[in-house]
Amino acid sequence: MGVIDERLAELGLELPDVFAAPPGVALQFNLVRVVGDVAYVSGHGPTDGSRVLIRGKVGDHRAGWLSQEEGWEAARLTALAMLASLRAELGDLDRVAGWLKALGFVNTAPGFNGTPAVINGFSNLILEVWGENGHHARSAIGVAELPFDMPVEVEAVIALH
Amino acid sequence: MGVIDERLAELGLELPDVFAAPPGVALQFNLVRVVGDVAYVSGHGPTDGSRVLIRGKVGDHRAGWLSQEEGWEAARLTALAMLASLRAELGDLDRVAGWLKALGFVNTAPGFNGTPAVINGFSNLILEVWGENGHHARSAIGVAELPFDMPVEVEAVIALH
Amino acid sequence: MGVIDERLAELGLELPDVFAAPPGVALQFNLVRVVGDVAYVSGHGPTDGSRVLIRGKVGDHRAGWLSQEEGWEAARLTALAMLASLRAELGDLDRVAGWLKALGFVNTAPGFNGTPAVINGFSNLILEVWGENGHHARSAIGVAELPFDMPVEVEAVIALH
Repeated sequence: MGVIDERLAELGLELPDVFAAPPGVALQFNLVRVVGDVAYVSGHGPTDGSRVLIRGKVGDHRAGWLSQEEGWEAARLTALAMLASLRAELGDLDRVAGWLKALGFVNTAPGFNGTPAVINGFSNLILEVWGENGHHARSAIGVAELPFDMPVEVEAVIALH
Repeated sequence: MGVIDERLAELGLELPDVFAAPPGVALQFNLVRVVGDVAYVSGHGPTDGSRVLIRGKVGDHRAGWLSQEEGWEAARLTALAMLASLRAELGDLDRVAGWLKALGFVNTAPGFNGTPAVINGFSNLILEVWGENGHHARSAIGVAELPFDMPVEVEAVIALH
Repeated sequence: MGVIDERLAELGLELPDVFAAPPGVALQFNLVRVVGDVAYVSGHGPTDGSRVLIRGKVGDHRAGWLSQEEGWEAARLTALAMLASLRAELGDLDRVAGWLKALGFVNTAPGFNGTPAVINGFSNLILEVWGENGHHARSAIGVAELPFDMPVEVEAVIALH
């Protein structure tokens, strides 16, 4: 059992199934693309296999939107979905030498700009698991629409051993 | 004639003129920036020289927006415009060793989230031309506005020989 | 005094304080992440320390939005804020060998798509200071919302000596 897998177990975290396109849809891209000692990771969301775990826009909870906290939770689930893809592609999460860059998109309802607090759900988990090697540059942007009406999507660049 | 140029001819694909700013506008950036064996490619859209070939938001066709299929076509034209920039910058498309990452933006009308199906127009063409070397990580995001009211914009990272 | 610092002085440019989270907020990411000879720079906006210098959406000035020129100014201030982060992280701006890629987001009011003209405020400053080494690939995207209601956010990839 690898160091990172042990750390995940210690934190009580289980990875979901690797993202799969819904029936009848063909993915025209790779979830992870490795070149040399860098991995480019496609945009991920809060999924378990082909199921989207949380849908909707993040905004004023009283107006019927997802709350900032629900957005945070979606971003945390997004990190777990990304780790599932990385484990499938790399064989072993210990091959991750360090996180470099994350670009987070939040499906925002009008007037909601607490996007950094939402994407913290992703960043916190990476830092919990990798510690100093989890440090990454980041942007957190509010966008008009995301695939499958997901509340959050994050893509990343990672350094490999 | 290079391998990729032959492949383009075989598929009956012709590249448009390289993107040029409309008269009176100065581009403050490079369409392609090469460093070592990596090329960073600026956001491209469905253009032929300074002409924008398709404009508008993608959404419900019955409400007067571009259809998903028209968005797909715009993304395909975007790939061709990007290849024109790459050929101009690299001299020869055979210098492309592999596609690494694409970030696709769709100019979405309210409620349209079929962004992956739209950006497939870009990815499909890259895969048709490059085969396995065309494999890339990707995100497909719905945004509020794109330059010149283009329906699609895609930027990319590419590995070079 | 470094070459770039001299150039900044020559242009009469002063850098603001490094971005700091508002009181009570913890940053869950790094403003700059260096790996080998590449620096990934987080999304920056027009800030001076924890103060946001300009807020609002860019659009039709007559309708009460920020004008395109005010957006341009915000993008210029964004470049200065990014240089402050880079100087703090790298110790010396002369370590920047070249700019590779910028991804600019504009907080757009409905119907405003002059995003390249806005992000030119960023690109112009980089080119003024670095000349040929400032050449970069770029995208300029109109988004729904940005953190702290900033009008502009730009992230970048940079080559280092």
